[in-house]
Amino acid sequence: MLAAARAAFAERGFDAASIRVIASAAGVDPALVHHYFGSKDKLFLAAIEAPADPEELLPELLAGGTADLGASVVRLLLQVWDGPGRAAGLALVRSAVTNEWTARLLREFLVSQVLRRVVGTLGLPRAEAEARGSLVASQLIGVVMARYVLRVEPLASASAEELVAAVGPTVQRYLTGDVDLPGVVAPTT
Amino acid sequence: MLAAARAAFAERGFDAASIRVIASAAGVDPALVHHYFGSKDKLFLAAIEAPADPEELLPELLAGGTADLGASVVRLLLQVWDGPGRAAGLALVRSAVTNEWTARLLREFLVSQVLRRVVGTLGLPRAEAEARGSLVASQLIGVVMARYVLRVEPLASASAEELVAAVGPTVQRYLTGDVDLPGVVAPTT
Repeated sequence: MLAAARAAFAERGFDAASIRVIASAAGVDPALVHHYFGSKDKLFLAAIEAPADPEELLPELLAGGTADLGASVVRLLLQVWDGPGRAAGLALVRSAVTNEWTARLLREFLVSQVLRRVVGTLGLPRAEAEARGSLVASQLIGVVMARYVLRVEPLASASAEELVAAVGPTVQRYLTGDVDLPGVVAPTT
Repeated sequence: MLAAARAAFAERGFDAASIRVIASAAGVDPALVHHYFGSKDKLFLAAIEAPADPEELLPELLAGGTADLGASVVRLLLQVWDGPGRAAGLALVRSAVTNEWTARLLREFLVSQVLRRVVGTLGLPRAEAEARGSLVASQLIGVVMARYVLRVEPLASASAEELVAAVGPTVQRYLTGDVDLPGVVAPTT
């Protein structure tokens, strides 16, 4: 079931892959998939062995309003990666860098589970939401790579709050600031 | 010779690894290493199969002054990665993510060949230079990962100049802006 889910999510993307198609590929009843995993989100997290469940972690953060959203997102990222999620996170990044299919799965995880929820609170037009989300992704992935993979100092040894203070404003600017957004034509007001 | 160089650079770091030690490990005369590679920088670039030679590419960029340095750095990164350097760059990133020694080599490349030269033009105290450099690294690696590895849209399909406009200000802020720097105690003026 998980292998069929991985194949479907990588091939079709998160949105287009349905539980019905995955169940059919696995030769089981869709009700069984629902019974075991509850939702497509949960099935996806299980299939990619996600380091954390954004659906559990994000609501509290998002309830805090948008003024500190950038700092909150960086803080949550570091909580997961400085904590028990690091091993699963590193495994996912390693696999994504060497395997095109896992790269697609990691991208679908970021876009459908993390960025869409975070940027979704801002009520933006779709193109703008995707542009801001992809810029946020670039800074968050970069922090992960610099801190946990390449260990560039002093970023690698910095405390979480030091990094929140340094990088939070970047993420905030990408979320709500005045940015020339790729692929978004500025409104001619 | 290149294998001995890789081992020495990974184990000791770029600064501490000397041509004399590398030549000795390879069982050759240091003069031969100098003859073939010219300098420790060039030997290092050959050893890691670097996607580009920062010593050739950076001087023109750095001569442009510091006001547009962030944009110029992003533009140069994209020139190398949208051009013939991408294959070597991807190979280096793939290897770094799966192999601790290559991770060290890629970090030494970033720090000794790229960041030190870029941040060096700003005439900062060492701790501040390293802190700003590591933040710049986080954004540049993140752009590489989001655009070329995970292909997060619209960042992956954006033109180079769109990305320069969106990400350049972040790099500029990390280089010269008002940032709470990790590991740097703010001066009590």
